Order: sequence, then structure tokens, then C-alpha cells
Amino acid sequence: MSKGLKIATIGGGSSYTPELVEGFIKRYEELPIRELWLVDIEAGKEKLEIVGELAKRMIKKAGLPIEVHLTLDREAALKDADFVTTQFRVGLLEARAKDERIPLKYNVLGQETNGPGGLFKGLRTIPVIIDICNDIERLCPDAWLINFTNPAGMVTEAVLRYTNIKKVVGLCNVPIGIEMGIAKLLDVDHDRIKIDFAGLNHMVYGLDVYLDGVSVKDKVINLLTDPENTSFVKNIDGLGWEPAFIRALNALTCPYHNYYYKSQDMLEKTKKEAEEKGTRAEVVLKLEKELFELYKDPNLAIKPPQLEERGGAYYSDAAVRLITSIYTDKRDIQPVNTKNNGAIASLPSDSAVEISCVITKDGPKPIAIGDLPVAVRGLVQQIKSFERISAEAAATGDYDKAVLALTINPLTPSDTVAREIVDEMMEAHKEHLPLFFQ
Amino acid sequence: MSKGLKIATIGGGSSYTPELVEGFIKRYEELPIRELWLVDIEAGKEKLEIVGELAKRMIKKAGLPIEVHLTLDREAALKDADFVTTQFRVGLLEARAKDERIPLKYNVLGQETNGPGGLFKGLRTIPVIIDICNDIERLCPDAWLINFTNPAGMVTEAVLRYTNIKKVVGLCNVPIGIEMGIAKLLDVDHDRIKIDFAGLNHMVYGLDVYLDGVSVKDKVINLLTDPENTSFVKNIDGLGWEPAFIRALNALTCPYHNYYYKSQDMLEKTKKEAEEKGTRAEVVLKLEKELFELYKDPNLAIKPPQLEERGGAYYSDAAVRLITSIYTDKRDIQPVNTKNNGAIASLPSDSAVEISCVITKDGPKPIAIGDLPVAVRGLVQQIKSFERISAEAAATGDYDKAVLALTINPLTPSDTVAREIVDEMMEAHKEHLPLFFQ
Amino acid sequence: MSKGLKIATIGGGSSYTPELVEGFIKRYEELPIRELWLVDIEAGKEKLEIVGELAKRMIKKAGLPIEVHLTLDREAALKDADFVTTQFRVGLLEARAKDERIPLKYNVLGQETNGPGGLFKGLRTIPVIIDICNDIERLCPDAWLINFTNPAGMVTEAVLRYTNIKKVVGLCNVPIGIEMGIAKLLDVDHDRIKIDFAGLNHMVYGLDVYLDGVSVKDKVINLLTDPENTSFVKNIDGLGWEPAFIRALNALTCPYHNYYYKSQDMLEKTKKEAEEKGTRAEVVLKLEKELFELYKDPNLAIKPPQLEERGGAYYSDAAVRLITSIYTDKRDIQPVNTKNNGAIASLPSDSAVEISCVITKDGPKPIAIGDLPVAVRGLVQQIKSFERISAEAAATGDYDKAVLALTINPLTPSDTVAREIVDEMMEAHKEHLPLFFQ
Amino acid sequence: MSKGLKIATIGGGSSYTPELVEGFIKRYEELPIRELWLVDIEAGKEKLEIVGELAKRMIKKAGLPIEVHLTLDREAALKDADFVTTQFRVGLLEARAKDERIPLKYNVLGQETNGPGGLFKGLRTIPVIIDICNDIERLCPDAWLINFTNPAGMVTEAVLRYTNIKKVVGLCNVPIGIEMGIAKLLDVDHDRIKIDFAGLNHMVYGLDVYLDGVSVKDKVINLLTDPENTSFVKNIDGLGWEPAFIRALNALTCPYHNYYYKSQDMLEKTKKEAEEKGTRAEVVLKLEKELFELYKDPNLAIKPPQLEERGGAYYSDAAVRLITSIYTDKRDIQPVNTKNNGAIASLPSDSAVEISCVITKDGPKPIAIGDLPVAVRGLVQQIKSFERISAEAAATGDYDKAVLALTINPLTPSDTVAREIVDEMMEAHKEHLPLFFQ
Ligand SMILES: [Mn+2]
Ligand SMILES: [Mn+2]
Ligand SMILES: [Mn+2]
Ligand SMILES: [Mn+2]
Repeated sequence: MSKGLKIATIGGGSSYTPELVEGFIKRYEELPIRELWLVDIEAGKEKLEIVGELAKRMIKKAGLPIEVHLTLDREAALKDADFVTTQFRVGLLEARAKDERIPLKYNVLGQETNGPGGLFKGLRTIPVIIDICNDIERLCPDAWLINFTNPAGMVTEAVLRYTNIKKVVGLCNVPIGIEMGIAKLLDVDHDRIKIDFAGLNHMVYGLDVYLDGVSVKDKVINLLTDPENTSFVKNIDGLGWEPAFIRALNALTCPYHNYYYKSQDMLEKTKKEAEEKGTRAEVVLKLEKELFELYKDPNLAIKPPQLEERGGAYYSDAAVRLITSIYTDKRDIQPVNTKNNGAIASLPSDSAVEISCVITKDGPKPIAIGDLPVAVRGLVQQIKSFERISAEAAATGDYDKAVLALTINPLTPSDTVAREIVDEMMEAHKEHLPLFFQ
Repeated sequence: MSKGLKIATIGGGSSYTPELVEGFIKRYEELPIRELWLVDIEAGKEKLEIVGELAKRMIKKAGLPIEVHLTLDREAALKDADFVTTQFRVGLLEARAKDERIPLKYNVLGQETNGPGGLFKGLRTIPVIIDICNDIERLCPDAWLINFTNPAGMVTEAVLRYTNIKKVVGLCNVPIGIEMGIAKLLDVDHDRIKIDFAGLNHMVYGLDVYLDGVSVKDKVINLLTDPENTSFVKNIDGLGWEPAFIRALNALTCPYHNYYYKSQDMLEKTKKEAEEKGTRAEVVLKLEKELFELYKDPNLAIKPPQLEERGGAYYSDAAVRLITSIYTDKRDIQPVNTKNNGAIASLPSDSAVEISCVITKDGPKPIAIGDLPVAVRGLVQQIKSFERISAEAAATGDYDKAVLALTINPLTPSDTVAREIVDEMMEAHKEHLPLFFQ
Repeated sequence: MSKGLKIATIGGGSSYTPELVEGFIKRYEELPIRELWLVDIEAGKEKLEIVGELAKRMIKKAGLPIEVHLTLDREAALKDADFVTTQFRVGLLEARAKDERIPLKYNVLGQETNGPGGLFKGLRTIPVIIDICNDIERLCPDAWLINFTNPAGMVTEAVLRYTNIKKVVGLCNVPIGIEMGIAKLLDVDHDRIKIDFAGLNHMVYGLDVYLDGVSVKDKVINLLTDPENTSFVKNIDGLGWEPAFIRALNALTCPYHNYYYKSQDMLEKTKKEAEEKGTRAEVVLKLEKELFELYKDPNLAIKPPQLEERGGAYYSDAAVRLITSIYTDKRDIQPVNTKNNGAIASLPSDSAVEISCVITKDGPKPIAIGDLPVAVRGLVQQIKSFERISAEAAATGDYDKAVLALTINPLTPSDTVAREIVDEMMEAHKEHLPLFFQ
Repeated sequence: MSKGLKIATIGGGSSYTPELVEGFIKRYEELPIRELWLVDIEAGKEKLEIVGELAKRMIKKAGLPIEVHLTLDREAALKDADFVTTQFRVGLLEARAKDERIPLKYNVLGQETNGPGGLFKGLRTIPVIIDICNDIERLCPDAWLINFTNPAGMVTEAVLRYTNIKKVVGLCNVPIGIEMGIAKLLDVDHDRIKIDFAGLNHMVYGLDVYLDGVSVKDKVINLLTDPENTSFVKNIDGLGWEPAFIRALNALTCPYHNYYYKSQDMLEKTKKEAEEKGTRAEVVLKLEKELFELYKDPNLAIKPPQLEERGGAYYSDAAVRLITSIYTDKRDIQPVNTKNNGAIASLPSDSAVEISCVITKDGPKPIAIGDLPVAVRGLVQQIKSFERISAEAAATGDYDKAVLALTINPLTPSDTVAREIVDEMMEAHKEHLPLFFQ
């Protein structure tokens, strides 16, 4: 390691890669990368080359001695890596489009990490991540696996339960987005805001919020429930919460909570958008095409500003900040997905949770919060049950478990609808679900 | 106590009273009751007299030396009682009809113990039960409180958290009904079937089922998921479950699970029935009128068979069986609502659960089950969160908590609909919600 | 099973066997045994024949159709057995004598189940019990293993952790002895007394005590701490407790608590007895010789009264009562060693505990007690830690773990003394510790 | 707070005060103290003046604008304080001498925080700390209470259970001493070593140890158990551990573990020292006299080097480091005594533990460690039981509880010796135990 780090990025042909590269460039002082291996599969070869060349130009422009390797050979990429990042998408955006479209036929919300979409993305992704973990065990057993691939909570759970890899962290940009939103609400710099996060991926709550270390939760709750302030709050969350609900909840929500506390509204909004401008995957497919056209420009040597529209803001920042803190044993506090270890009393000690952790060279160490507020324990437990049964179905190819997982998901109206959706989606994603079609 | 027991039945004017009296008569040998005090409020005086006279005729016919007292004086009834049973209905069936009708306007299921109906029945009932507990503490501190009043789980939770009464048991006929159903499915006598029950009131699961002590769960699950058997199974549960769901769940459900695992179907069924023949309360109102006409007949000295249609079968049997086992320290196993005490790991140790218990003179002792299956922990936790927040709202008159409770209930489509329903129902039940209108 | 039960008794040549046979005869109506296989090892052949012939005479006299088989072939004995009882002693009483003598040289208490004696009896016994469990898995996978072999708690822990056998119960006569003592103290029949037991084997507490179902704990504590009553109390416990200690403890102790709450006195008493009349093993060796002389008498066809002096009173009764309740699904309550399953909050859910259980055909179901009193949690946890580390050492042959186990035992004065005793005892028991001398 | 901080130091006349003042001077940049109130009782007035004048000279020499107030008026000192530090000793060193001397008569170890000494120091101290907490609640409710007074774990437990003060931290220099020792063992700078601490005050273990963030536990365990290295290890711990014990324990011990894992040796060592040069209190009494003679020197304006011999090295550093991190929301990691909050699974969530915490302006946040190693859970639980029962005895004046607490302490040979020691020490400390002599 004396000569610098080796990073392997699986799904390196992703449109996000320039974000990540930008992050590595910015933190090069602290995080001396020697080799960046972008690896993808045959079907992603063209994109890999486009985005890989852009990465090379970016690094060259920054004048840094980072070697960029583009490859389809995952083993070569993993060999002796220090960090492995995963940002792949089994079945590409076309599969995501099915995750979104098919459920809508049943009047059920289709979304990448929630409901049937989350289940099937998990079913497709988890066998691949298990395979990657087996490779890591063999080729770079000391590496940290930093997973951005959704559903990140379910994937982290699966790694903890169905592989021998212990050095895994799941990452999401939702918490950082909440911090940004609160900073904006209070009109202060982001770095003056700290939040105690706890819950699950895309089901995380802010249990307390501090300005310069002093709790300002009461003030924030007041602002969030102030009728005068509604338009601002709507901008953060999309729809705006009932003041009585937020006052009694006495915690910060995340945008994904809309799917659960406003399920009907979100379903209708999603249906309307799907009709008018296509589902999110369909929109992104178009955006990505444009992005890759931009990336091809041999004069482009920066992350193009249009990437922002793609979503996933701060992801790169969050990821590189995490990797840097692990590498440097920084011991700062970041919200990540890791083994609970008793930090949240009502969740299993051996399950993945999303929680504020001290980030050390030995990995994230969750800060004990006692327990979640009574009002949220049920929903959080329910999503954890969904994640666990889904991960089990994915790892074993058990059809009944897939039906069970979807039935217990709060977005599903009945066991029968669950079974019908599973049946149609199994067929639609057949080629990416080999364990279910043996 | 040497001269026999004193029982005080609050809500003694209920149409169920003949059931209870029949049960006391049947078990008189083991349960030597000396005084039965039927107490009701002014508004229920006429019914109390009708049903009270029938009770007297029944006892006379049985030739037993039980004195029946009819009174509006709760203090006199409670004084030195050995057992207090509660079967009252704040606001009578008219209030229940509102619990059912109003939510339907918002496309939300209205039902006595679930969703908005459960919340508002709790809000009306809990302050009264707290008041009764205060009286018990003063007038008969050694008495056991046997509560049949719904929502029985929420009411038991409230007694445990907001009163000094420890000797409380909540009772429901759902578990006994499941046993009956399984006995019929296997075509064996009821007493050869034993089930390990665990969960919450109206949210209870059968974790294992035994015939003559030997587990027959696999056989039962096979029968329940056998397509040939469907018509029978539908008769038990109303709608019939997806075989894949039940196989993966690997536990027995209760009829109330339909509200959660078939929420859409149940909503539509309920709306249709409400339109065609009235809501359940409206149907029961009519039934009760007919029943009381029958009860008036001075020649009637038995429980009339028409009472069966009223619902609540086995309630009397369950109640008298419980009281007898407590009184005689019988140490048999019955499923009741009591303090968890660690028996179910993922639920709070100090919360009420419905679980198979050894029934002793010192009360029910729950049998440790380890934990609920992963798949059901979420929903059960969610209902427990709903019960706790509802109980807190009821005990304190906190409007925000009422909105929160309804928002986190799985049957509610959004925080806004929750708030709207709460607002309309608060107004509709105003006279029975004094804590919210101070 | 229609033709009656098959029981296999490992260590069948034990002097206790007539007790067990007497028990089987008494309960034959409920427990229709067809075959009783007494199995022993080559070294125990002579005793097996003596005691086996006595058993045959006893059964013949009772006129029961139970076949008694005497064998050295464990596989034949286990094949298709319904119940397997274990009462063997690896290294015989000679090994026990070493367990007692050697520690005394270091001024450490030597006793069969406590301190160094308990550790080494565990180290010798556990590999054998694991071997038996492997046979059971193969030859009679549906059998229940009823273990009387000490240290019964450690052995049950080892079976739960290091074998695939789930149907295991550890049994001890200490709780029944406490009940007898309390019955005598209150001068009432034994069957009117019920006690809530919880803790570990030989470290069990009575958390409440009932007479005819009504708690009389306060009265019992008063009697136990009444100076007028001291002589009686001393007879139960040997030494007599400080009233202030018992009042504040507010629980019933067991005789083995003397080793921990009176460690100095017990050490001195044991040393004195060892000097004056030999250690317990040495005394028992002599007693056993006399017993076997009696057993040889071809006219003897009953359990000779002299067996009572051997100790272990009620063991047979406890064992046959347990087997009968399992066989008949009796669902009565008995204190046994079984998996905790959350019944005692501060002990691991997957560890063996000694606790009041409902005894069903599906095995013992522990009754949840919440948690042990604060004052006893530490000592109980410490013994559990000792049992777990000892069991691990025994199952793996790890010398360091053996030293650790003894160091953390409360009866050991230091890590160095622990190491010295382990070294000397390892050498002394070498032939029975093959895993440590590979 | 804009004008700087107010610190109130209760027991300000302590010989340690120059340490603390030196710490405040060193960190003045980060910790802008405006007022330092040294408060003591009438009996300590002379010392307060001596040490207070030294403090003034030290601050003057440093050229800092810190006002030093010397007072016997605790209310004036507490009024609007930002931090309250407590370092008082009820009954002075004379009482400690009794804590040490009396138990030795019974062949029981007498020590300030362990066994009878710990119990009686707790019994004297806890009512005073409760009184101080009541004052804090009234006079400076936002202040942090930083307690150095021993037994610090028991005192923190008592504050959490018997007062309304939540902002309390207990502090000890043992963990920092272990870090220093390991740094020396590895011959590296102290700040390159990090240790995961968990357990209780004076019963803390190092679960992992890192050099520059990388675990070096295996290497450290090897060094600690290397026979070649023994002399060094003995210097850290006093006596030296058995290699097999430490290898199997696989954790770092603290010096106080000698009292429990080498109880016999420590008792003899203590008796010998008491005979030859007096007990620790007697030695310290002499040292203190000399120190105060030095302090009187009007030319002395620094902490005299002789203070080091007094013991308690790094205390000041630990204390000021803690206060600074709270004040500046530094979020670094320090081992302190705080509410467990689920961080250590086998200890009560609401009990005080000593554990590595993130230190924020909102107080210490414990890092979840899952659970302690099996081998240490028992002893730790036992000390926690001792602390809880002792704290309860102290807060309520319950004699029986005091006997119980001492009986369950691992250093006590029997309930009778416990009772005898309690009786003699109650009498000896009578004037400082008003609750027991009402
Ligand atoms: Mn995300
Ligand atoms: Mn019910
Ligand atoms: Mn025993
Ligand atoms: Mn200390």
C-alpha cells in the first residue's frame, strides 16, 4: 500500500463515474490512488470506453499520477484492490423500466428500491453481489466493499448474511440530502449541521439535529410545521407533511417516507408522471443517452454540469468522503449502512441498519441510540422484514419467499396481487433470475 | 372468599350477558359464585333490567344459590369483588356505526378494532377503563380485571401503562376460533388440538399446531394450501390465502389478518356490505333489538339460540374458563392478553401481547417463544406502535398523537387522510372524548 | 410406539438404576415401557450384571411385561429408542475422588459440579455426550435425551451448542428438594407448594413460592430469617444464612449457593470432612460397595432402603415424572434445564437455563420470568460464562480455554492457581482427556 | 456563555486542584474559562485557601484572565455554572483509612473502590452527590457534571437512577493509563494508539487495540504473553498474568482486574504493605501533608512535580480533554462513564458503563460494541449488580441492601463476614451515614 491505493469500480461504465472521478481528484491529497480499475460487462463495453476515456482526460487535466484501467476482466480488477466500489445495474435501465411499469398495471407503486421494484432489483442484484464477494474473498480479502447499488440496505443485509465478507459498507446520499435541506431551512452552512441518523436505507430518520453542536430540533420541527413555511418544506419533501403528524413524530423524515406515509398520493403522482413523461427509468434512459453524447467529446475533461440532473447528487462526495475516512482512520461521523451491533435495540443485532457511525480504518462503528421512537419502530421493522425475506429469496431462488416478501411489503394491497406481480415480473426478468428458473 | 365469589360485570346490560351467565352456571362446581353484580349506566338501565331478569330466571332454573344484583352504582358493584369483567361500549352501537361509516367516506376501512374505528373506540374507552381501574384500586385491590371490551389489546396496554392495576387480562375469542377451525379441518375433537399462539390481539399467529401433542403443522399447512381444499379454507378465513404466501409464512393466520394482507379486498367487501345491508354495527343494532324482545319473555330461562348470530361465539366459554383457571390455580394453557415479560423478544417486555400462557392463581404466565418469524415481526410491531400511540393519545387527550397513531396505521393511505378522518371523527364523537375538548 | 416404549439407559450399571426402575414400575400405567436397555462399558460390566439382575427381579415381582436388556453394545441399545437417559461417570468415582482431592491441595474447593471438579468432570464427560448425540442422530433421531449426568447445566449447554440434538433436557433434584424443604417449613403437603424457579443448574433461585396458588413468599422469607427458626433453616441449607442477606435478596436459595455465598466456610468444612472421613467420592465408593453387595442378593426384588443414603433422593421420581409428562403431553410445570429462549432476559437466548417449564410432548417450554433480581444476575452470568468456556474447552480440547474457564470461576483465587490446578488435573485425568493430549 | 465559561469545582481544596488548573491553562485557547470557583466545606477551608492561592499564582503566571473564586458557599459556586467538577472525599482520607484498615481485620481486601471500601465510600458519597444534583437542577440546570469522585461507576449509576440530572459523565484515568502502557510496549507515540474500551469503571477491558488505525491486538497479546517480556508486563500490571489466561481472554485487562483475577495475591500484598508502610490512605495522608507544605510556598506558581507521586496521573488531562470536547463539540473518542443505551448488550440499557464514546456538545455517545466477550460478562455483570445494590442502599439508607451488596461482591468470603464488616464499618463511619442512623 506504500505506493498508493488500488480502487476497483464494478459497473465502471456507469454515467456516475465522472462524479466519482471528480471526488477522487478533489481528495487526492488525503487519498493517494495509484490505480483506478473501471470494470464492466460485455454489454456495457461501449459505455465503459466512453466514460473511461473521459476519466482519463479528467485525471490528466488534474495532473495526477492515477492510472486508469478499463477492463471486462473482473478478476484482474479485483486482484489486490484496497477498495471495491459497486455501482452496477443488472439488466440495465431497461430492467428498471420494467420494475416501474409492471406494478403500475396492478395499481401498485413501481420504484427502484420500494415495493415490487425494490424486490426485483434485489432478486437480480444479490446473486451477482454474492458472486463478487466470493471473488473478493479470493482475490483481495482485505479490501473494503463500498456498495452504492440499490436497494443498498437489502444488498448490505445479503452480504452480511450470505457471504463471508465482513468489510462492507452500504452508502446512500439521502442523509446528506437531509442535512443540506436543514442547512438551507436554517440558512446556515452545511457543515454546521449535524444529525443523529438511525433506521434503514431509504427509511432513515433524523432523531436529533444540532447547529454547532446544540440541539435545534424543536426549532426545526416548528419551522417544518409552520404553515407560513409550507412551500419551502414541500420543496424538500415533495408533498408536505401534516403539521400534527410531524409534531407528534418529533423526528426528521426522509423523502422516501412519502411512499409509506403518503402511499396513495405517491401512487397517483407516479402513475401520472409515467403517463405524461414516462417512468423515471425511461426519463433517465434519455438523459443518459445525452450524457454519453457529451462524454464522447474529446475536449471534455471535467464532470459536465448536466450530470446533476441525473440525480444522485452528493453520492460521489459521500463515497469518497467515506473511503477517505476509512483509509485515514479519520474517526469522523457519517451515516452509512452497516451491521447494527445493538445500536438500535428493536432491530436484530446482526442486521444491516443505516445509522450515524464513527468511520475508522477498521470500518464504521455505529453509535448506540437506544431505540427508535415508538411510532416508527413498526414501519422500520416491517421494511427490515421485507429486506430479509427478499434477500433470502434472492440468495436461494425460493419463489414462495418472493411472494411472501412482496405480500408483507406495505405498498402491496394483497397476497393475491403480490403473487400476480411476482409471476409477471419473474417472467419479464427471467434472464436475470437464473436461480428461479433452474 | 370462603362463602363464594363476587363477580362484578361492568356493562352488565349487554346482550352478551346470557352467554356469560350460562358459562357461570355450567362451571358452578368449580367456580362457586355467590354474588353476580350486573352494573350499567343510566342510558343502559332498561336493557340491564331486561337482561338481568333473564339472568335471574336462568339461575333459578339451574337451582343455584347465586344472587344477581342489578345496579347503576358502580362502586357498590366493585366493592370487594373477586373478579371484575368489562364488556361495555362507550357511546353504544350508535358510536360504533360512526366508527364504521365515517372512514368509508375517505375510502378507508371502518371496523371496530382496526384502523380509525379501532383508534376511536380506544379513545372513547380508555379514559373510562382508567377510571374503573382507579375504583378497583380503592374498592377491590385484589380483584382480577378480565377485559372483553375492544380494542382489547390497546385497552390492556393502557391499563398496564396508565394505571396501577397489575391484575388485568384481556380476552378474545379469536384463538379459540382458530383451534375450532383446525379441529374441523383435521376432523378431530377440539380438545385434541393445541396451538402455540403469539402476537397481539387480533394480530395473533399460530406458530405451531399439535394433535395429541405431536406437531402437525406441516400437514395443516399442506391442507391449507391444497387447491382441492380451497372452499373449506375460504369458509374459515373469508377470502382464502395464496398458497405460496402461506407456505412461506409457515404459520397460522387469524381472520383479522385479512385486513392487512388483503386490505384492498377487505375495503371493497366492507363498502359493498355497508351499501347493501348496512355496516356491522347497523346490522347488530337490529339483531340486538330482536334479542332484547326475546329476552323480555318471562318464560325464557335459557340463553336463546338466536344469540349465536350476534357473533362472539365462545366468548363466554373463554371468559369463564379463564376465571375458573385463575380461581382454581389450574395451570392449564390459554391464549390471553398480558404483559409480555420477554416472552416475545422483538416486542417490549412491558407491553401487552396475546400469547399462550399458563393460567395460575397468580395470573397468566406467558410461555417464552423466542421470537416471532421474521416475516411477521414488522406488521406486529407496527400494530403495537399503533396501540401504544393510540393509548397515549387516549390517556392524555393529545390530538397530535391521535393523528400520528392513525397515520402509522397500515390501513391509512396518508397523513392527510389520517388528519381529516381524525378531525371528522373527533367532532362526531365529541361527547365521549372529554379529554380532547377541554 | 403402539406396542410400548423403548428406554435406553446409558450408564445402566449405576447404583441409581433400582431407583429409576422403581419409578418406571410406579408409573407403568401412564408410561407403558416395553423394553428397558441398560447399557454400560466394559469396565462396568460386573456392576451392570448385578444391578441388571436386580432390575429384572423387581419387574418380575411387579408383574409387568417390561423386557430388560443388559448390553455393552450402545448402538443396539440406542436403535429406535424413545427416550435415552444418561447417568454415566467417565472415570468412575475414582476420577471424582481426584476432582475433590487435588484442588484441596491448592486450598480450592473440590466438588463434583463446582470449581475445578465441575470443570474436569465437564472436560471428561462432554466429548462422550457429543459422541452419544452423534449416535442418537443416526440411530434414534426422534428420541428425547434426558441427562442426569453432572455437571448437568454444562452438559446441556454443550449438547445445545456442539451437537445437532435439539430434544435434550437436563435434570436435577435440587428444585424438588427445595419444594420439599418449604413444604416442611410450612408443615403442608408437598403438592400444595409451587415455586417459580429460574437460574442455572445448581445455581437456581426460587423467585416466588405459592401455597395452593397464593404467594406466601413474604411469610417464607420471614420464617427463613426468624432467629427462632434458625435450627430448622440450618438443616435445610447446612449453614444458615444471614437474615439481612435473605431479606434483601428476597428469593429462595439452593444448597449449592453455599459454595458461593459462604465460600470460605464451605472450603473449610470440605477440608475438614476430607480429612476426617474422606471426600464425598471416597465415602460414596464405600457406600456403593455395600450397595452392590446387597444388590447381589437373589432374594432382593425391591429398591433397598439403604440406597437413600447414597444421595440423589427424588432423582428417579423427577426423571420418571419428566419422561411421563413428555410422553403423555401432560403440560404440567417442572423445573428442568433447557434452552432459555428469552425466558430470562439477562442470559443468552440460546443457552441452557434451569427454569420452570410447561412439559409437553414437544418438550419443555420455559415460562418467561422477565429477568432475575439485580442482585443475582452477576453470579448467575458468571457461572454461565464458566459453563460456556468450559464446554468450549471440552469440545475443542483447548488448553488455554480450560485455564480461562477456571480463572473466571468464582471459587478460584487467581489465574496462577487456576493454571497450576489445570496442569495437575490434566495430568491426573490424562486417559479420559484424549482431545487435550493429541 | 459569550463571555467565557464558569467552572465550579466541588472539593476545590483537594491536592489535585493544581493538576486541573494546569490543564485549564494548557487548553485555554480552546476552553475560554472566565471564572473558576473552588468550593469546599468548612473542614477543608485551610487547604482550600492554600491550594486556591497556588491556583491564582499559576493563572497569573500564565497571564490568563481567569478569575479564581474560593468559597464555602456551594450555591454561589454552582449558580449558572457551565461545568461542575466533583472531586470531594466525604470524611477525608481518615475515612478512607478506615475503609482500608477495617476489612483487613476480616481478611478481606480494603481498597478505595473495591469490596467493602468501595461500598462504604459509595454509602458516604452518594447522598452528597444527590444533594449536589438537586442544587444543580435548581441553580445551573444546563451544566455538565463531571465526576471524578470514586467509586465513579457507582456514583454515575446513582446520579442516573436517583436524580433528575442527565448531563453527567464519570471519569477515570485507567483507560488512558492502559493506552500509555500499550504505547510503551509497542514503543510508539501515545496518540498513534487507539483502544476500544468497554466494561465498567475499574472493570474495563480493551476489546481491540489499533496502531495508526490498524488492529494490532494479536501482536499485543503475543507480547503480553511472551515469557521474554514478562518483566515489562509486570511493571504495567503489578503481578503479571498467566499467558494461557490472557491468550484465551483475548482482551486487554486493567490494573484493577488484579483484585478479581488474583484476589488472594492482592489481599496478601495489601496486608503486607499495610503492615510495613501503612495502607494507601495512610501513605497518601503523609504525601498530602508534604504537598500542602509545598503549595504554601508563595513563590511556587506551577504544579509541583511531587504531585505525580500522589497518583491519579493523567486525571487532569483526561478531565480537561473531556470538558473541552464537550464545549467545542469536538466529536473525538474518549472512554467515559455514561448511560449504556444498548451499546453493551448484556448490561442494562439504563445503567452506567465505561465505554469509548464520541464526545459531543450534547454529551458522550457510546459506540455500540455488540457484547462483551463471554468470559468477562459474568464478572462485569456481578460488579454492576454490586454497584446497583450499593447505590440503592446509599440512596435509601437500607441496611439489608448494604449487607446484600457486600455479600454479592466477589471479594467477600461469606454473607456472615459481609454482615460483620458492614456492622463495624457502619459504626466507624456513623457520622457520615445519616440515612442509616435516623
Ligand atoms: Mn439511496
Ligand atoms: Mn376479539
Ligand atoms: Mn443436580
Ligand atoms: Mn478511577
